[in-house]
Amino acid sequence: MDLPASNLTTSSDLGPVILALPKGRILKELGPVLARAGITPAADCMNEDSRRLRFETTDPGLDVVRVRSFDVATFVAHGAAQIGVCGADVLMEFDYPEIYAPLDLGIGGCRISVAAPKGLAEEEDSSRWSRITVASKYPGIARKHYAQRGIQAEIVHLNGAMELAPALGLSKVIVDLVDTGSTLRANGLVETEVIAHVTSRLIVNRTALKTRPEEIAGWINRFRAALAA
Amino acid sequence: MDLPASNLTTSSDLGPVILALPKGRILKELGPVLARAGITPAADCMNEDSRRLRFETTDPGLDVVRVRSFDVATFVAHGAAQIGVCGADVLMEFDYPEIYAPLDLGIGGCRISVAAPKGLAEEEDSSRWSRITVASKYPGIARKHYAQRGIQAEIVHLNGAMELAPALGLSKVIVDLVDTGSTLRANGLVETEVIAHVTSRLIVNRTALKTRPEEIAGWINRFRAALAA
Repeated sequence: MDLPASNLTTSSDLGPVILALPKGRILKELGPVLARAGITPAADCMNEDSRRLRFETTDPGLDVVRVRSFDVATFVAHGAAQIGVCGADVLMEFDYPEIYAPLDLGIGGCRISVAAPKGLAEEEDSSRWSRITVASKYPGIARKHYAQRGIQAEIVHLNGAMELAPALGLSKVIVDLVDTGSTLRANGLVETEVIAHVTSRLIVNRTALKTRPEEIAGWINRFRAALAA
Repeated sequence: MDLPASNLTTSSDLGPVILALPKGRILKELGPVLARAGITPAADCMNEDSRRLRFETTDPGLDVVRVRSFDVATFVAHGAAQIGVCGADVLMEFDYPEIYAPLDLGIGGCRISVAAPKGLAEEEDSSRWSRITVASKYPGIARKHYAQRGIQAEIVHLNGAMELAPALGLSKVIVDLVDTGSTLRANGLVETEVIAHVTSRLIVNRTALKTRPEEIAGWINRFRAALAA
């Protein structure tokens, strides 16, 4: 490890600090950042096929749990994990006051966008709509986006395959995470508005930052040093 | 195909009937049922790695969309798919009045249960609780289950990894789908109550059954014949 761990770990009765990491694409991108921060989880943590959920690290003061991206924010907001990594999309969707997001990790770059069928996007002036149906796994973000434009949005909450919705008459547009845009194109959709650019953030439970200040600030500093390296 | 398709397909302007199928374990179990019903989707439909979302079948009157289990019910309830296959767990959770579930397909057998840490389950009498925290991806089912017992449940909605919640102090118990119970045991939990036994159902949009009665009733009959075979 690059940094001494002695001042970060405690033998406190509180047990190890829990770091919640998201499954999937972001976990792979996180590997080098964790390594530079001196965090070495048990080997099968980075193997998505492992059915284990909790992993020790080489530091007895830190354990990792691997959960879905949306659940990282829930675990940290409730203090079940003291720190975590999740996308700005999830923070926008839930807007948990208990979460403090001190660091942009600069990975997982993508955007939350509105997409519409190619023909619709070219023919209609969306600013003149008063109502719209939207399929999204981000009901909060979608509703807020249209409310700010004075448009009443009826949201159909889906967990995936939003791209099917317009062609099947389930919604007029979708609000979804877009990376390369290839899935949109494959389904005859075009990106019509970028709602927000998204990267992954280090997040912290505000209460834990007060009750375990040395440990939590220590881990934030480790991530900060890893980004500077 | 075992059954003649001529009386099921129409050249109507409504386009093909859309059958929504769930991704994952159930899709594999469905393979033989679909074959006996004379439904042959494009080959990559059964390949979970395919990124396609919509598949033609050998019958021009039927297309398949492959979505998450929870989304099958949403697509059918809104009429974006006219028929679908989903677990009784999803039907219980949403309780959509627009969905009619005429057939139990007898596959995907499991149960929705309450599980608790081993020690808690042995020491405490749950019938004496007045409040409880529950982690679940079934907030509706969990809330209703405890309301019927006069217990006020605070639900923490998670999308996965519920089994972590009790050990991290996120909830006292979990409400989750249980198959073999091995994941529960691996996380120190025991099943304390079975809320419902679950199998997969053929579901139908009630409006489609009225507006396209011959086609929809035809497909229901094909599934019924497949089960009898």
